[in-house]
Amino acid sequence: MERRDLLLVWETMLTERDYRTLKTQLADANEVDVAEFMAELPPDKTVLVFRMLPKEMASDVFANLEPEDQQLIISSATDREVSELVEDLNVDDAVDMLEELPASVVKRVLKTARPDTRKLINQFLNYPDSSVGSIMTAEFIDLRKSMTVSEAITRIRRSGDESESIYTCYVIDSRRVLEGVVTLRELLVAEDDTIVEELMETDLITALTTEDQEEAVNRMMKYDFISLPVVDQEHRLVGIVTVDDVMDVMEEEATEDFEKMAAMAPSEKPYLKTSVFSLAKNRIVWLLVLMVSSMVTGGILGKYEAAFAAVPLLVTFIPMLTDTGGNAGSQSSTMIIRGMAVGEIEMGDFLRVLWKELRVSILVGVILSAVNFVRLQIQYPGNTMVSFTVAGAMLVTVVMAKTIGSMLPILAKRLHVDPTIMAAPLITTIVDAVSLVVYFTLAQRLLGL
Amino acid sequence: MERRDLLLVWETMLTERDYRTLKTQLADANEVDVAEFMAELPPDKTVLVFRMLPKEMASDVFANLEPEDQQLIISSATDREVSELVEDLNVDDAVDMLEELPASVVKRVLKTARPDTRKLINQFLNYPDSSVGSIMTAEFIDLRKSMTVSEAITRIRRSGDESESIYTCYVIDSRRVLEGVVTLRELLVAEDDTIVEELMETDLITALTTEDQEEAVNRMMKYDFISLPVVDQEHRLVGIVTVDDVMDVMEEEATEDFEKMAAMAPSEKPYLKTSVFSLAKNRIVWLLVLMVSSMVTGGILGKYEAAFAAVPLLVTFIPMLTDTGGNAGSQSSTMIIRGMAVGEIEMGDFLRVLWKELRVSILVGVILSAVNFVRLQIQYPGNTMVSFTVAGAMLVTVVMAKTIGSMLPILAKRLHVDPTIMAAPLITTIVDAVSLVVYFTLAQRLLGL
Repeated sequence: MERRDLLLVWETMLTERDYRTLKTQLADANEVDVAEFMAELPPDKTVLVFRMLPKEMASDVFANLEPEDQQLIISSATDREVSELVEDLNVDDAVDMLEELPASVVKRVLKTARPDTRKLINQFLNYPDSSVGSIMTAEFIDLRKSMTVSEAITRIRRSGDESESIYTCYVIDSRRVLEGVVTLRELLVAEDDTIVEELMETDLITALTTEDQEEAVNRMMKYDFISLPVVDQEHRLVGIVTVDDVMDVMEEEATEDFEKMAAMAPSEKPYLKTSVFSLAKNRIVWLLVLMVSSMVTGGILGKYEAAFAAVPLLVTFIPMLTDTGGNAGSQSSTMIIRGMAVGEIEMGDFLRVLWKELRVSILVGVILSAVNFVRLQIQYPGNTMVSFTVAGAMLVTVVMAKTIGSMLPILAKRLHVDPTIMAAPLITTIVDAVSLVVYFTLAQRLLGL
Repeated sequence: MERRDLLLVWETMLTERDYRTLKTQLADANEVDVAEFMAELPPDKTVLVFRMLPKEMASDVFANLEPEDQQLIISSATDREVSELVEDLNVDDAVDMLEELPASVVKRVLKTARPDTRKLINQFLNYPDSSVGSIMTAEFIDLRKSMTVSEAITRIRRSGDESESIYTCYVIDSRRVLEGVVTLRELLVAEDDTIVEELMETDLITALTTEDQEEAVNRMMKYDFISLPVVDQEHRLVGIVTVDDVMDVMEEEATEDFEKMAAMAPSEKPYLKTSVFSLAKNRIVWLLVLMVSSMVTGGILGKYEAAFAAVPLLVTFIPMLTDTGGNAGSQSSTMIIRGMAVGEIEMGDFLRVLWKELRVSILVGVILSAVNFVRLQIQYPGNTMVSFTVAGAMLVTVVMAKTIGSMLPILAKRLHVDPTIMAAPLITTIVDAVSLVVYFTLAQRLLGL
């Protein structure tokens, strides 16, 4: 059965009040599907369905719900129920929820939580946005290096229910300083009486709570880990980052880069859930900035009024020149911005990139220039000087566009400015202005205007 | 110690021929770091270092090497060594390697491989590029539903060494049809004599070998899995997709989308490793196509020569109009293309998107228009009709740009064309042409040209 059909079957059961069958089916279902089902129900039904779920499943479904539905359920629950729910949630899911809920609800949740949970939640709420601390979770297996394999496995079997990731275990000393890492696989294939210290990896790859989350993502990808230990400045283990959170971060960061590179402020929510007003607000600022910049380009154009009044044909090549320059430049800036985002290109590669782009741009520029020259000679025979002007301006524009397009993102990073703002729209505006100056200067020289 | 320093220390040991210490250190190191170290060595040293590695580590390091280094090591090894290496590699890593090596080397590798390995490799080599089959691996734990928990754990402990992912186990029947899934965590927390059938999840979430790899990525992200079972048409289990491969696919697909959206053919290799010639080849085709399209725009402009000969001031607003139109359009197309890539926006959302973009564009368009009107009234007092022309053209351009920008990617998908080609550069070219027609038509009417 298609998963989509499953939701329809459940909906029918709900409409027909066949609660018993629905309850049985939901108990066996995947929590993500149940959450998707609940998201489409009216408020009263959402609460009804949530109360049907077996206790051990409720918090998993809850973690996957939309903030509005989470709020609904909390409002309809007793203090005791809220407290139990929060205890069952992983700390990172509880924190994600609290960040979306109105202050009054947050207050109630924290009031009902157990003191140690409350302390942990408050600590996690304090990590800055986009830091490793903000995406880590506090549930993990910690072992001591003196344990035997069978003691370790017993400990894992006991706490396995609670830990978000039991497959990588962390060995700490009495002050919680991280000493080693051992995978469950290594424990399982070892002899029962082997000491953990003999098995553990001591070449530790970690992240700091204060590091940028992108660093943790790149490190996990490099080493193919399914969880990464997070330590504080004293190298004490405070949490782990798990691969599912890392994938979410990867998707978010890529989406953010797409948005910023298309001259928008990044949005908090998915497109269909963002209001018209927010969408407009995210877009208008850059549109205004770029509009004002292209007024400058218009001003430059105004200086050459005499030239195009004399040879109006010149005007008809402007879109081709500026568009091609913009495209050539944004090709380069995109390659470099993406290369820096995935950690391939670093600031030290400045000269290597420049030399590469210079050669690419000459190759590409000569071809585009030649095509133009031939075309103009055929279309406007006798106007050889116009052909030279356009072809020459094209070559210079492409070389300059690619050089600017590749250098500005690296310079931005060096100046600690987000390189993505050097993407297509800004590069296009800059290249527009420069290419028009080149074009009309050439025209004035070659055509004697 | 910073990981970068580690590589320097090893390099010094190598130069000083302190092979004994180096060998000890490498044996304890992370295989990804060792591969990174080897990538920077001259060919003879690469082979030397590889021979220092303990046998159980060699294949892990090998899987992380660049194709050139892999070829080097294979060329310097005996048939027997090659055969052992290939047996130690996971099938997906062996296939990745073979796809990059020259035909003669592939032939030698396949000749020395054991018959069943050869058969498996050939099967994997046949899955089409970007299909789920092409990223899956054949190493996984399969259980029978009649087993007890302790039998299952014993089986896992025995085969744990070989399987890429032992943390999710797959229950199959005698014909290898997938019947259930059980995690190692569930097995570990259960009683020893519980039957696997009682524990296993039967609500199966799978991928087909022939599906697009992006589908598998989205499914794993949705359900937060660390591995996804891959079945054939008869629902027989043929492999699994693991989370580390999925992260690589996510990064590759996002990079590809960035490249395509900036009007480039996607590249096979990272930027710094791509030759100047390949880079130029990837970029020139779209630059030519778009250049020819903007010649059309130039042609349109030519039709209005009389208008701008009469009022040359009109020309100076062209860059602002076309740039703003292009930016407004690419904002919309980027949002929609990304929304479709992450599975948020579907073809059924066509009207919802249209209605949303229409409202956003009117909001944004009115603001940009008003700013322009006021500015023109101040800058060119008395030219009220020119102000009306520019402001009117701006509003129409923005509304039209956003409508076109949001609709074309969805239409492209409906026509089974890659929506990313409807990104900024093509949208800009289309919007350029339309906005110029609107602008000059308005100018002719309002200014009576």
